[in-house]
Amino acid sequence: MKSASFMDSAFEEAESASYRGEVPIGAVAVLAGQIIARAGNRTRELNDPTAHAEILVIREACSKLSSERLPQVDLYVTLEPCPMCAAAISFARIRRLYFGASDEKGGAVTNGITYFSQPTCHHSPDIYTGIGEVQSALMLRRFFQQKR
Amino acid sequence: MKSASFMDSAFEEAESASYRGEVPIGAVAVLAGQIIARAGNRTRELNDPTAHAEILVIREACSKLSSERLPQVDLYVTLEPCPMCAAAISFARIRRLYFGASDEKGGAVTNGITYFSQPTCHHSPDIYTGIGEVQSALMLRRFFQQKR
Repeated sequence: MKSASFMDSAFEEAESASYRGEVPIGAVAVLAGQIIARAGNRTRELNDPTAHAEILVIREACSKLSSERLPQVDLYVTLEPCPMCAAAISFARIRRLYFGASDEKGGAVTNGITYFSQPTCHHSPDIYTGIGEVQSALMLRRFFQQKR
Repeated sequence: MKSASFMDSAFEEAESASYRGEVPIGAVAVLAGQIIARAGNRTRELNDPTAHAEILVIREACSKLSSERLPQVDLYVTLEPCPMCAAAISFARIRRLYFGASDEKGGAVTNGITYFSQPTCHHSPDIYTGIGEVQSALMLRRFFQQKR
């Protein structure tokens, strides 16, 4: 499977999140060519402001591998991670980060605090941007238009 | 109960964390003068890099109140929160943040990215620093000395 296919799986999670009334963001964790964890946002359902797709995926992958570090794991997420998720990605020692749309308002990778280039950041994944950017942005725009 | 007493409870959680071999950081959430959630670090035990004391306390408080926002809740934590926890505190709309020692290396409130003063941060709690600062710093130093 290639990067675009893994991002497709992240989009499936984003779409499921949308059906549940959650902001449509999805993520998958990949180890050795296999998806080992997948999730969409569940902040409303779980009443948990930390239940972003990335956090849920990291927690599930760590649980499966019985490790608090994931140095061989790649993370695919449909939107640029926020500061909370960027820090969690660093703590988990994620190897590669692929994300779709950038997020000028809430993103913390190429926008905002640019977390991984901060002197206090001890691990940065390799970063790949723009895969499925248009699809991700459209999905979010549609969701917020319907909400209004 | 006064601020110092709530911070004492956070220290009890930090001490319990230390006995479990976790970095000794503790936190409590307070609503209307009552502690509604308390936790110490559990990253090792849970194999979860997101299981910082603050995150565990926020999740527990949200679960108890069936809400992803905690606008009446104050958080006491023995060490300055990291970027992940600072962002979670903001997302949860915590009212007041009290913390003990500042953390030049990993902190994100008065150090590092100074999260709450970023233009992309939508909610900042009122911030009170230095309660139990010496005790917190000593506890951490002792822990890391024993580890060596």
